[in-house]
Formats: sequence, C-alpha cells, structure tokens
Amino acid sequence: MIIVLKNNQTESKINEFKEYLEKKYNVGIHVSVGRDSVVLGLIGDTSAVDEDSIRAQEIVQEVKRVQEPYKKANRKFHPDDTVITLENGLKIGDGSVTLIAGPCSVESEEQVTEVAEAVKKSGAVILRGGAFKPRTSPYAFQGMGADGLKLLRLARKRTGLPIISEVMSVSQLELFEDVDIIQVGARNMQNFDLLKALGKQRRPVLLKRGLANTIEELLMSAEYIMSNGNENVILCERGIRTFETKTRNTLDISAVPILKKLSHLPVFIDPSHAAGIPWLVEPLSMAAVAAGADGLIIEVHNNPAKALCDGSQSLTPDMFDSVVNNVKKIAAAVDRKVSVFKAAVDI
Amino acid sequence: MIIVLKNNQTESKINEFKEYLEKKYNVGIHVSVGRDSVVLGLIGDTSAVDEDSIRAQEIVQEVKRVQEPYKKANRKFHPDDTVITLENGLKIGDGSVTLIAGPCSVESEEQVTEVAEAVKKSGAVILRGGAFKPRTSPYAFQGMGADGLKLLRLARKRTGLPIISEVMSVSQLELFEDVDIIQVGARNMQNFDLLKALGKQRRPVLLKRGLANTIEELLMSAEYIMSNGNENVILCERGIRTFETKTRNTLDISAVPILKKLSHLPVFIDPSHAAGIPWLVEPLSMAAVAAGADGLIIEVHNNPAKALCDGSQSLTPDMFDSVVNNVKKIAAAVDRKVSVFKAAVDI
Amino acid sequence: MIIVLKNNQTESKINEFKEYLEKKYNVGIHVSVGRDSVVLGLIGDTSAVDEDSIRAQEIVQEVKRVQEPYKKANRKFHPDDTVITLENGLKIGDGSVTLIAGPCSVESEEQVTEVAEAVKKSGAVILRGGAFKPRTSPYAFQGMGADGLKLLRLARKRTGLPIISEVMSVSQLELFEDVDIIQVGARNMQNFDLLKALGKQRRPVLLKRGLANTIEELLMSAEYIMSNGNENVILCERGIRTFETKTRNTLDISAVPILKKLSHLPVFIDPSHAAGIPWLVEPLSMAAVAAGADGLIIEVHNNPAKALCDGSQSLTPDMFDSVVNNVKKIAAAVDRKVSVFKAAVDI
Amino acid sequence: MIIVLKNNQTESKINEFKEYLEKKYNVGIHVSVGRDSVVLGLIGDTSAVDEDSIRAQEIVQEVKRVQEPYKKANRKFHPDDTVITLENGLKIGDGSVTLIAGPCSVESEEQVTEVAEAVKKSGAVILRGGAFKPRTSPYAFQGMGADGLKLLRLARKRTGLPIISEVMSVSQLELFEDVDIIQVGARNMQNFDLLKALGKQRRPVLLKRGLANTIEELLMSAEYIMSNGNENVILCERGIRTFETKTRNTLDISAVPILKKLSHLPVFIDPSHAAGIPWLVEPLSMAAVAAGADGLIIEVHNNPAKALCDGSQSLTPDMFDSVVNNVKKIAAAVDRKVSVFKAAVDI
Repeated sequence: MIIVLKNNQTESKINEFKEYLEKKYNVGIHVSVGRDSVVLGLIGDTSAVDEDSIRAQEIVQEVKRVQEPYKKANRKFHPDDTVITLENGLKIGDGSVTLIAGPCSVESEEQVTEVAEAVKKSGAVILRGGAFKPRTSPYAFQGMGADGLKLLRLARKRTGLPIISEVMSVSQLELFEDVDIIQVGARNMQNFDLLKALGKQRRPVLLKRGLANTIEELLMSAEYIMSNGNENVILCERGIRTFETKTRNTLDISAVPILKKLSHLPVFIDPSHAAGIPWLVEPLSMAAVAAGADGLIIEVHNNPAKALCDGSQSLTPDMFDSVVNNVKKIAAAVDRKVSVFKAAVDI
Repeated sequence: MIIVLKNNQTESKINEFKEYLEKKYNVGIHVSVGRDSVVLGLIGDTSAVDEDSIRAQEIVQEVKRVQEPYKKANRKFHPDDTVITLENGLKIGDGSVTLIAGPCSVESEEQVTEVAEAVKKSGAVILRGGAFKPRTSPYAFQGMGADGLKLLRLARKRTGLPIISEVMSVSQLELFEDVDIIQVGARNMQNFDLLKALGKQRRPVLLKRGLANTIEELLMSAEYIMSNGNENVILCERGIRTFETKTRNTLDISAVPILKKLSHLPVFIDPSHAAGIPWLVEPLSMAAVAAGADGLIIEVHNNPAKALCDGSQSLTPDMFDSVVNNVKKIAAAVDRKVSVFKAAVDI
Repeated sequence: MIIVLKNNQTESKINEFKEYLEKKYNVGIHVSVGRDSVVLGLIGDTSAVDEDSIRAQEIVQEVKRVQEPYKKANRKFHPDDTVITLENGLKIGDGSVTLIAGPCSVESEEQVTEVAEAVKKSGAVILRGGAFKPRTSPYAFQGMGADGLKLLRLARKRTGLPIISEVMSVSQLELFEDVDIIQVGARNMQNFDLLKALGKQRRPVLLKRGLANTIEELLMSAEYIMSNGNENVILCERGIRTFETKTRNTLDISAVPILKKLSHLPVFIDPSHAAGIPWLVEPLSMAAVAAGADGLIIEVHNNPAKALCDGSQSLTPDMFDSVVNNVKKIAAAVDRKVSVFKAAVDI
Repeated sequence: MIIVLKNNQTESKINEFKEYLEKKYNVGIHVSVGRDSVVLGLIGDTSAVDEDSIRAQEIVQEVKRVQEPYKKANRKFHPDDTVITLENGLKIGDGSVTLIAGPCSVESEEQVTEVAEAVKKSGAVILRGGAFKPRTSPYAFQGMGADGLKLLRLARKRTGLPIISEVMSVSQLELFEDVDIIQVGARNMQNFDLLKALGKQRRPVLLKRGLANTIEELLMSAEYIMSNGNENVILCERGIRTFETKTRNTLDISAVPILKKLSHLPVFIDPSHAAGIPWLVEPLSMAAVAAGADGLIIEVHNNPAKALCDGSQSLTPDMFDSVVNNVKKIAAAVDRKVSVFKAAVDI
C-alpha cells in the first residue's frame, strides 16, 4: 500500500504517523522523501489495513492499494486451479465444462423428475431447483421450502444427479446438510452472517455475484467463506445492473477471464438470469465457454408458461438440448470436454 | 395491467388464456379487439400477478403494469402521512425534521457517551451506533456485537436519546428487543427472511435502499415488513452505485419527493454514506431538507482519525453542529421545524 | 402504440384527443372501453409519434410503444442480412468473420506500414488507424490529422488492405472521400449533424455504440444515417460504462445476438476499447465470435510502450496472431469462415 | 503522479525509464527505493502526462495521479470565483442565483414571446429556447433552425432578456454570433471539435454534463474551451444515466458542491432534463440552490400538451412562478439573492 502525505508535514508528524501505522497494522514502513511530497510504502501483509481509515487521517492526501485485499481466494498464493470433487466423484474446475440445469423452483414431484430426466439426457450433470425463493414481492410464490428440498432429493435418487439449491438464511442451513452444492443468491452476496456460517460447514458453495457488486467484492465475499474454513467455493457471474433495458441484466463476460486470472476458484456463468430471455441463453452460453467459463447453470422447465416463477426466462428441454450441442462444439474447439454423468458407483 | 397479445390469435386461444388468468389470479378481464391486435385489461387487485409469468406465455407480446405492485406502502390506499411515535413521545414523519447522529460503530463507553452528549447538544434527537458491522472484508473490524448494544443502551440511559442500530440477521433480532429503531442496511434490503421477521416484531424499522435497488424495489421491501404486520417503516435513501467515482455513491435526491408521492412512509437521507466525504455532508443535508426529507442520519465521531470504521466519512462534533445550524435555516425557510429533544417524562 | 387514459374521462374529451392524434400523426385509432379505463390503440406507422409528447397530455396515464421506432434498420422490414461489399470485393456481413486491426493512431510511415504488414500476415483484412483522435484532455496527442490519413493511404497502397479511420466532424468529411470505411466514435454516436452528413455520402460507416447509450439508441443513430440515404452501416459494440472498475468498460456481449435479431445490419465488437487490457482481447474476441459477431476491430501496435495513444490496450503483432488463431477455431466450430485477404484484382 | 514499478527491476532499467519520462514529459523524477518496490514521483506539470501510456510500459505496476489533469478550470490556480458579465450587465456566478427559463424548442413568434413575458414576470433573467434540437429519432421534430434563432432574438428585443440556445455543430456557430450564451448539450460534451471552436469565439458557453460522463471529464471538456481562449464557461449538471427508471435521469446533486470546490466556474442545474417530470422540478430546484448552485435552467411552455418537443417535462408559467417563489425562500435562508432583471441601459 502506498500512502501519499500532504505537502509540508513536519518530520515529527510524519514519524508519529509512521509509528501509529506500524503498531496498529503490524507492517513495516518505508518512507521516501521527494521534493514536494512524502510517500510511505507499507511492507508486509496489508489485507487487514482499512484504506478508509487511512484516508481519514489529517496528514494523508492519497492512498493506493497495490496488494489485493484477499488472500485465500488469491491465485498469487495458490497458483493451481481449485478442483472441487462431489460425492459421486464429479470434478468441477478441472478444465472440463460442467452443466447444471433444472427448474427455477421445484413445483411438484412430476415436474422436477420430468425436468431432471430431460436435462440429464441432454448432458446436465447436476440438477438445480429452488426450494426457498427470494422474490421482490411478498405476494409472489415464495417456493415450496423444505418440501421442495425433499422433492429435489427424490429426483436425485431417481436420476443419480447431484443437486444444488439456494439457501436464504442461516436458520435454513440445517435443511441443506445433504445438498451437494449450496447456492448463495445475488441478493445475499453480502449477507456476511450467512457467508460465515457457510464457511463453517463442509458443502461446496456456489456464490453468485450481486447485481451491483464489483469483481473485487465478489472475491471478498468468497474470502469470508474461505477464511472461515470452507475452501470449496464456485464463483458465478449472473449479470450486473446497468442502464440497458433490452436484457434483464448485463452479462459481464469479461468477469470470466478476470476472475480466472485473479483467483484459482472455478468460475460459472448463469445465462438465464443474466439475459432474462430464453433464446439468448444459447449464444451467451457459447460465449461463456469461449471466454473460459468452468460451467453453466441454466433454468429449464418442462412447461415454461406454467412455471410458478421466472417462467419467462426458462428453456424447454428441447432448447436446452440445442444449447448443450452448441456448447460442446465450442468446448471441443478449445480442446475442452463437457463433463459427463458420474454414477455414484464411480467413487 | 394491460396485456397486448400477439397478432392473429384464434378466438378459442384468446378465451383459453382469458380463463386461465381469471382463475389463476382471481381478476376480471376486459378484452378489446383492435384491427391488428387484441388487448386485455385486468380488473381488480393485480399486485399478486407475476408480470414475468405472463410474459412467458406464448400468446403474449407485451405486458404493462398500470397499478403499483405494492399496497400497504402505497399512498393511494393510505393518503395520510404515517407518523411514528417512539416511546419517549418523539414523532417521526409529522412534518418536522428528525436528526439522527452518532458513530459508525460503538467502540467504547467513553467514545459513545462523548459522541452522544455532543450530538444531543447540537440538536440530534436519536443516537445511532453500529454494534454489528457489515464489512466487505472478513479481516476488517466487525463491530463489538452484543457488547456494543450494551454500551449504546448505557448512552441512552445517560442522555435520554432513543437509539437506532443495525441488525444483520434473524438470529440477532432478540438482542434488539429494546432498541428504539432497528436499522436494515443497504446490503440486506432484499434479505427477505430478515424483512419477514422484522414484520413480526413491534419496533419501527429504518430500511435503507440497496446500492443497486430501484425505488420500486425499496417499496416492495417495505411491503414485506408491512404485510407481515409492522407498519412502522422509515425509508432511507443512502446513495446508489453509478459510474461516478468522486463520491462513494451517488445520492439520488429525486428519490425523496418521489417516495413521498408514492408512499405515506417517512423518508430519510443518509448523507454520510452517500458521499463518503465529510465536508459534503453539510450541502447534501441542506439539499435533502429542501427536497422534503423527513430526517437525516449522520455519522459523527469524537475523533474520526481514530475511528475503527468509516472514519473517512465521519464528522467531528463541530462539523455536525454547523450542519444542524444550516439545516435549521433551510427548514425554517419552508416552514418546517427541526425536532427537539423529548425527555421520556413527556410521554 | 397503446395509450391508457386516466380514469373517468368524458366521452367528448376522449373524442377530442382521438381526433388530435389522428390529425397530428396520420394514424388510425382503435378505442376500447374497459370497466375502469379506456385504452387507445394506434394503428399505422407510429415511428414518428413522440411518446414524450403523448405523455404530456393531461388525459394520458400511460404510454406503451409496441412497434419499434426504427424502420430502415429493422429486420422486420428487411429480413435478409445486409452484406456490404468494399471496392476490393471484400464482403462484410455475409456470414464470415471480418478482422480489422491496426494502431490506435497513425504515428509515422514506418509504424503504420510495419503494423499493416504484420496484421495482414496474421489474417486482418482491413487496416484501422486513427488520424483525428478524440481525447479527453486538450493536452493529449490529438492525432496527425490529414497527414495521418495520407500515411494510412500509403499503407493501403503497399499492402492492399482497405482502410478504416474515425471522422470527428462534418468539416473533416471531405478528407475521407477515399477512405474505405468511415468510423463514428462512441462520443459522436449522437452527433446528429455528423450522422446526417454521413447519410448523404456513399462510404460504409462503422458506428460505435456510445458509452451510455442503449441498444435502441444505437439503432436510432443508424436510422439517422440510413434515412438520409446510406444503408451501409456496421454496428459496433465497444463496452458500456458501469460501476465495475477492473475493466475500462463493460463489454455488453448480449448486444450481439440482440442486435442481430432486431436488425439486419452487420454487428462488430471492439474488444480493445471494451477491455482496456491487452490480454483480455483474446478471450473477449473468442466470446464475441461465439455469440455471433460479424467481425472484430482490434488495436495492434508494433511497440505498445511507445504508442502515442492507448498504448496500454494495444496488442503486439504476436499477441494478435494468437487471437486470430483462436478466433479461427471458434469460427470453425460454428461452421463459419474467417474472411481472407482480397487483392483488388479480384473485383 | 506516483508510479509504482514492478518488483525486481535492474538499476539500468529503472534509469532508462526515468530518462524516458524526463525527456518525453519535461518533468523531474524522484526515485524512492523501498524494500520490495520502487516508486517514482513525477515533479512539475503532469497535466500532459498520459496515464494510459505510462501504464503500457512493461516496467510499470501501478500509476496514481495526484495532481488534477486540468489547469485553467482548476480552483487551485484560480481561487476566486469566475463571474461572467453579459452585455446587459447581468452577472453570473457572483453569489446570486440566476434563473434561466423558456421553451424546450422555439415553435412560433406567439409561443416564444408569450413564454418569455411570463417567465420574465416570474423572475427569469435569461430566456432559453431551442432552435436546433438533438433528437434521438430522425423522424422527430428537429427544431426550426435559423428561423428559431430569429424568433428568439425577437423575443429578446421585446422583453430585454438575454438569450441562450444550443449549438450542435461548428458549421452552425456563425448563426450564434449575437446569442448571449451558447449552450453545448449533453450529447456533445465530448464533441471536441465543437469545444475547440467555442474556445476561439467570445460568447460565454453553458456546458452540459454528458449522461455518462464523470465530473472530471466535464472539467476536462471545460478545459478544451478555456485552453483555446474562452474562459467564460458555465458548468451544468443535468442528470446522469443510472438503472433507476422512475426519473428520466438521476440528478447528481453532489456534483454541485464538488464542482464548486474543484473549480472556480459557475455551476448550474437543469432540473427539467434531470427529472423528466414537471412536478419534480420544484423540489429539485430548491435542493439545487440549497446545495449551492449558481443558477437553474428550466423548461417552461405556455401549453405543454401542445409542445413540439419534451412537452412531458415542461412547466406551465404558473408552475414556474411557484418554483421561483420557493427558490427565493431557500436562497434567502442561506443569505443569497435571486438575480433580478437588468435592462440593457444598466450597462
């Protein structure tokens, strides 16, 4: 961290500030005196140094962080890709492309089973399904709750597909004990109590980027989970909020290569929420894989017009089948494989 | 709600869709047949109708909501301003300007008492202080927790000022039982489980707008609290995230008159978080009152340079005193009063 | 266009408004009377109807445009893709991927020739080079002007590559008479006088999307050029301004499939300006082609560190060579070709 | 400017880079060697140093500008407020509040005269009126052009009010020779050729901030005009583009105090374009003056429903009268005056 002091400071004031920093943050300080300004360089681990607090000091003109504020999620300290292995042996982040698909919300045994079988046939290797649904309106369908999770487990039993579902609060966590991947939604990306609790359990976490959160904030939220003990985090870009209205959100495709460079964690794309328009899912999925994404999470419904939530962005099983075929072509072009189904006996 | 159908639909398809809507949403439907297109008008309470789900229907071209999706928070159904009365008799939203001030986080008995006495002297009538702090970094100071709330209660006892503090999760709620106003931070504006729980308790809630949330979403989050039983909600604009970097966030001053028009709830401004720069708090506070805000919530620290969080945006007690003086001038110009301290005996 | 009237209007007021609309905009009106509200449907060409002016009418509650406000650029009225043929016979928008490359600004004969030869060897079929440079600072290098265009023509003569360069004002246009494609920069996307003038000349125009302009506004700016007589317009997405700071701008990859669906015009991506970071150009280029882009425009410099402008985002010739190889793989995967050099004798 | 070099550079490489900087930018360099990193401090005038070009150097890790990149517009080098005196003696930026009002576009002699007389009566001291209109759609009314300017001059003759109108291109400038203030619209804020031309003529310029332009970019555009010889620039905030849709744009009220601090130029607010909603103009005008704005520019039409452009945001003369009354109250509260009409004989 580089701190530029205001002009014309006395030597004693500078020394006082230097000692304050050394003591408070346990860092070394290198002072360099220029003709007009004095620059302090902080040496050591500055991830706990609060830029804001430094900026509040009377003596300070500018602060510039050079080191990233995250450690566990940082590729610098962990050069190899993190590979997450599910109970059935499926590997995520090993270079292959992982396809997750399923309905926005679990609605009935028939619905979830039918969708699960269809997406498995097309090439999905993990089943998604919402049980607890974060809805803008208190009057909208809020999900089936614990019963939804039961139906999801049933679909897992029938198809063998591992399952992923979204948790909305710490108190729900006990219901997710045997869910293969726990999802944190965009609105909860900075629900720090939830992140801490997820760090203290052992299930992998798929962490979605908030609508207005920066790439660095996403990594800091991953850091919350990792620094509490759980290093199995999957990052997921799902569109950010901008002024453009033709799409529900703006997919930040650049986030994929940037996250892969800054971090060792797997990076997924959710083209369904990013676009909000079914036919856009295919080109965005292809772009995501071309840009290096480790996987995709896609909403599929056996009857989108009857879906209890987000129907307008769900694919039919046929549309999903076409997406998979095209994603396979792109993956092959860059010498990558699309993951195939693992029966639990493979373990 | 107006639904424009795609061209060239058969009469039987239109009827089928009409019946589906009537049954699913319990609304009346008026069909108007134009030369090229058919328009359906939904009659009755459409707040539970999911636009998204309508848009997913094969037959639909466009959907336009005419009625607002919120009811409890809607001025149409509640023309009079909501006035919230605290236990000491202080009224919020009665036309006067309410000043809340205090440190970002409670750090020690001395600090919180000293700040409380200073802001009371200048004109604040409610004391703010963070006990649980939502911080981007897991390595930053996370607040004193329950001990912080104790110190805040102590400061209340000494000064008589009602207190406000931020809750971060449902499990913390029991600690807030005697806190006069419970604050929901910007990052938790769509933590729906927390909103529901706040709806089921009796303390007034100050609900901050999320960084990337629209005015309508803010009202929908208020609706979550209100529809669960608690109608004492204060809305608070605290800056939105934009491309401008000279300020931490962009204060959306227009939100004040718009929220006052759409809703009967009191509207506050938090100029400290909006700006992120101490000297900006004064002009923004003056602008907020000129635009019609019911109150302000301002960070004040006895020693900003030593603050454990957000020091760079805190005012000194002297600066706060100047803000109050200028706010009083603006309030007087538009025939409004700045609320004065109520000792509990007033009740 | 659907116009919802306010409740409880008298029949005579409705008729008066109906006649006003019919007369002013030469459209038919279909009135449908519901239980609570009256809806007018405008029949005919509504592209000249000003939504804003309708909304200003006392009687109006809501306006909803159903028809797009652009005609010439609209795929509905021109289902086939527009294919632009340059003088050397090179076709743009015919399904193949067109690569444009070259330096941000022309700096010397040696520089532009060296870059031109390098990018041609790698696979670029059009040479880009700035002569007039729009710079945020009046103190920054403003380009070589007319001399830059001369050097660009010289490079064209030596390599046979058609050239593209940016025009900044109507008065410069005469200097661009023999430039193969005229570029309009993001900052001038709504310089309507320039757009009109470009509509009255015969050279193809590459129109860049403004930093804060919607997809619809981009199409409306294309409409300015086309409605003035020049239908050879190439649309170019180059990143929009958002809150994210890791990239200079946020590439709106969804704009590619959406523009291809709404319009028949070729759609290009400028990954250099979108990212502002050299190593990001490769994954973004691959994503762009996977999403369906008709071409790419990329900055290449023989010595980026010595570039007089935008050096920090320029590729070296070697990096560009790698981009081309990877773009070819993606194109092949989706059965598309990358355009190859056309010597003028091919015509 | 502070430049942080990458780790482990040889001394000769550092020296080579130091010499390159000294020579290219004519600055002094102070080298400070820390334990891990080397920091260069640039001494002297760095406004012409291109950050981007520095960042492109292999040896550079980070660049941080300490000095602002603008000089003429910088309050540091010009501590006193700029006061602009019009031909009739009216002073802008002298501490009083200047009210500009008039129709969006000039439509007829009757219209412009009627509006001029009404706004003069209420307290406007300058008449606005559009002759050349930048419209998103080529099919919308584009203004009366030169004839509109003639009618505006006629209204000036009748009322004595100085006039302001928007110029859209360099070629139109000669028509504006006797227009009292020339306006540059938001879409042309970075039309650098136009800015240069405006710098070479003598009329004051009101420069509107672009929808997606930062405060610093606005000052850099002012710098284009000023460095070309014309120091009479008025800065105007008119709303920026964000995700919020309840208002047309988001008024960045913080821009007022920030611009006043960074620059000595007068700062105006255009509440009409910021809001896009007539009734919002009043509270926003009051907030603008409370925040320190030097003036307001407001759209008024004698018959908004019949306006040929932007009718939906225009005030009636009665509404404007109310705005003026409330603005006067706010101004009085902070010891400021609202400018009163100056007959030309005052000079």
